[in-house]
Amino acid sequence: MGGRMSLRDYWYVAALSSELESKPLSRQILGEHIAIFRNESGEVVALADQCPHRGYPLSLGKVVGDTLVCGYHGFTFDCSGTCIAVPGQDRIPSKADVRSYPLVEQGLWVWIWMGEGEADHTKLPSTPWLTDTENWSAVGGVAKIEAAFEFLVDNLMDLSHETYLHNGSIGTPEVASTPIEVEVDESTNVVRVFRHMESVDCPPFYSRTTGLEGKVDRWQDIEYFPPGFYLLHARIAPVGQPPLEDGTDDHAFHMKIFYGLTPANDERVYDFWALSRDFCVGDEEIDRFLEKMQASVVQEDVDALNILQARSKTAPQWTEVSIKIDRGGLAARRVLEAIKNA
Amino acid sequence: MGGRMSLRDYWYVAALSSELESKPLSRQILGEHIAIFRNESGEVVALADQCPHRGYPLSLGKVVGDTLVCGYHGFTFDCSGTCIAVPGQDRIPSKADVRSYPLVEQGLWVWIWMGEGEADHTKLPSTPWLTDTENWSAVGGVAKIEAAFEFLVDNLMDLSHETYLHNGSIGTPEVASTPIEVEVDESTNVVRVFRHMESVDCPPFYSRTTGLEGKVDRWQDIEYFPPGFYLLHARIAPVGQPPLEDGTDDHAFHMKIFYGLTPANDERVYDFWALSRDFCVGDEEIDRFLEKMQASVVQEDVDALNILQARSKTAPQWTEVSIKIDRGGLAARRVLEAIKNA
Amino acid sequence: MGGRMSLRDYWYVAALSSELESKPLSRQILGEHIAIFRNESGEVVALADQCPHRGYPLSLGKVVGDTLVCGYHGFTFDCSGTCIAVPGQDRIPSKADVRSYPLVEQGLWVWIWMGEGEADHTKLPSTPWLTDTENWSAVGGVAKIEAAFEFLVDNLMDLSHETYLHNGSIGTPEVASTPIEVEVDESTNVVRVFRHMESVDCPPFYSRTTGLEGKVDRWQDIEYFPPGFYLLHARIAPVGQPPLEDGTDDHAFHMKIFYGLTPANDERVYDFWALSRDFCVGDEEIDRFLEKMQASVVQEDVDALNILQARSKTAPQWTEVSIKIDRGGLAARRVLEAIKNA
Repeated sequence: MGGRMSLRDYWYVAALSSELESKPLSRQILGEHIAIFRNESGEVVALADQCPHRGYPLSLGKVVGDTLVCGYHGFTFDCSGTCIAVPGQDRIPSKADVRSYPLVEQGLWVWIWMGEGEADHTKLPSTPWLTDTENWSAVGGVAKIEAAFEFLVDNLMDLSHETYLHNGSIGTPEVASTPIEVEVDESTNVVRVFRHMESVDCPPFYSRTTGLEGKVDRWQDIEYFPPGFYLLHARIAPVGQPPLEDGTDDHAFHMKIFYGLTPANDERVYDFWALSRDFCVGDEEIDRFLEKMQASVVQEDVDALNILQARSKTAPQWTEVSIKIDRGGLAARRVLEAIKNA
Repeated sequence: MGGRMSLRDYWYVAALSSELESKPLSRQILGEHIAIFRNESGEVVALADQCPHRGYPLSLGKVVGDTLVCGYHGFTFDCSGTCIAVPGQDRIPSKADVRSYPLVEQGLWVWIWMGEGEADHTKLPSTPWLTDTENWSAVGGVAKIEAAFEFLVDNLMDLSHETYLHNGSIGTPEVASTPIEVEVDESTNVVRVFRHMESVDCPPFYSRTTGLEGKVDRWQDIEYFPPGFYLLHARIAPVGQPPLEDGTDDHAFHMKIFYGLTPANDERVYDFWALSRDFCVGDEEIDRFLEKMQASVVQEDVDALNILQARSKTAPQWTEVSIKIDRGGLAARRVLEAIKNA
Repeated sequence: MGGRMSLRDYWYVAALSSELESKPLSRQILGEHIAIFRNESGEVVALADQCPHRGYPLSLGKVVGDTLVCGYHGFTFDCSGTCIAVPGQDRIPSKADVRSYPLVEQGLWVWIWMGEGEADHTKLPSTPWLTDTENWSAVGGVAKIEAAFEFLVDNLMDLSHETYLHNGSIGTPEVASTPIEVEVDESTNVVRVFRHMESVDCPPFYSRTTGLEGKVDRWQDIEYFPPGFYLLHARIAPVGQPPLEDGTDDHAFHMKIFYGLTPANDERVYDFWALSRDFCVGDEEIDRFLEKMQASVVQEDVDALNILQARSKTAPQWTEVSIKIDRGGLAARRVLEAIKNA
């Protein structure tokens, strides 16, 4: 992963909570193969996915009680990665333990700490909209993209692509034509991109769920927490009704659109997504509608980025042309570069 | 493409005329990705298949009027490759243009000039038999071969393989057993191979279409115009009735068998083919028969060359043994080598 | 094949006898492509699978009488690899011959000598249990594993994996828990591993075929003849009835489990297997049962080794932990290393 080694001291989304059961999941993150499962107590556990005996993936083994038993020769590990049994003898070799990774389950998502040292919980992204189920309803999913992580960052930081790539669902002409504002918080590395569209058509994604028709005010406020977490604050409201000075915003509909950007390796990235809304809370029909719409939007990104990655291997080098809409993406690149070289 | 850079200053077949419509076609030629389409005026257009903004293939965009709009962020190009619109701003960056390639539509085929400079129309192959539809009927197609261009040149220059690889359609024992004559025109680089078979069996390909049965005189006169154009003059006639001294040849049936050899990259070549005949002109049933027969012959070549390419990666080096039938192929290799080193 | 060049002076299983017919089989062994077929006299023949003319695989050609005719241009070879005909001329080039390989058909298996020099018949493994059809019944098959040969050696030398990978057919807890004894014959390089399990459950593989139920004595005595031949002497007997001092062992059921380990190249190995038994001789229903069970056991190994190979390309280096059950495998590795460096 080259310069990405310094991307280790961060939390990444490792799995959907719903993906984890007693049958282990094998997932590669920052180049490391990891076996993730739920033990019989229901706790989530992540161990290095490689038996120290002959290298067989532990994810192909079997969870027995609170242990994971290798499927090749039976080396057995507890949830801290300590080897507690081997075949044919009682003595356990001292080097037979495997690394375990700190996990935190938070709503739909399970986060993993990829740093070598102790987990820094102050760095864990806050996602109250995924856990406050009384006021917010959330849906989520994950897609695998055969492309470098950086292509996905570019994609998410410049939403003008919605107009062309996601035309018909979330894209309308105004997304591309409305200028953006960009801010970088130099102390936290958070990159913010604001696009406030006023009196524009409400795209199907929102008109169907909010009941608003015709013209609306539509805000897209991005917060990117490099390297692995992206949060889009979407606000749809009747025209000319901004939030009050005290922050209350009762006329508006709010949606939080989350992305966990988890690099598998240099040529693959996991694209975890979640949507949380403060309207139609608990309406399962709306859940299914949004889930389906968003999965289809994400698939459009997946297809495009797969193509970009494949093309990048056979296309000649060229001098990239950037314009004003790219300022968010360029800022994100600068911050990532700084993190890698830190 | 290494030494093949010097193969650039030539015309190649880029597409079948029938392949081009408003949905762009993506084709790689000499390593370059090219988007080819027909604009709303019906003209054929070829642009570099890479948006200068973020590298997305323009072939995935949309033709709107006489422009091509990128499917990712909407950069828009006219038919000369000039960028005429970008999202979010009025000013067009000066480096946002893409290369356009000269095209000529000539009967079934659309030719492309791959040179950097101005197109040299004196180099464009003459194919009157594809455009004189009153006296000639033509059919054509294209196959993609996962093999180096050179394997296809070898294949076409030595037709003795018809006896073995195309046994049952165009191959008869005499093709392999009849000696050939070879000429190289040093001024034009054209390689000619002559094989005149007298009083031989008429293969199914010709007996079905000419009505001739039993023994015939069968001539195969190859003209190879390196690098990308190959023309086989086939003559089938009753035994012992050569053309008259003034060139008239009314007793004979003539077929022109064309190949456009278009390297995609070092490991893939497009094999454009066309057949034109001066008999059964306008007979659509014969069209379908020849089209089907020839597509099947070409597929036999495709299969063989795919295998040769794959094998060339795992087989040990060996000293190639050449014999008399290879003189045409060896001459073609010499000429190609000279062009590459020019 | 690097240091494996010195693995050449050995016999390997090249094919099942039943695989060979007049249509040639293409098989890669130690990196060499070989065309293997039965000529019209029924003799097995192996020739280098590459025509010296243009490199086309001879295995795609046609056996005509006792010759093999190349499917591209008709170069023709006799069973010794001598070129006896070429197209378009009578003179045969002196360098047009191809290498032929010594073969020996021995029961279900056809062995090939891969050395450059004359075949050393004293090195040919003895497999009387495959040819003495009066006293032994044999079944066999072959699987292709996308893994280095060394992974298969490791797998077969440590049968404790039966308990986990082959649980339900041949694996029972005692295979993993019973200690082994290991011997290396330094003069012949044969590695022997003994595992004698006493009063253990009879696994389905044997209970169904021997009729024994409940507890049995079960012996697994491995003989590995590096590099390419492995023989497991399995003995299933009523508890407490060892062979007599004179070697007679009438109460026991014996099965010989053979593996021919034939490296295709550095990343692929052929796993030929055969089972021969001295009970239910001639019972075709038992033949089918054992064939099906063993094919399924072999497939479990194939799946595991395919995964190990794939993982070895993306997993980080780690320090392998070995324990007592690995002594057979480690001994085999030492012997192989010595052969390679000889």
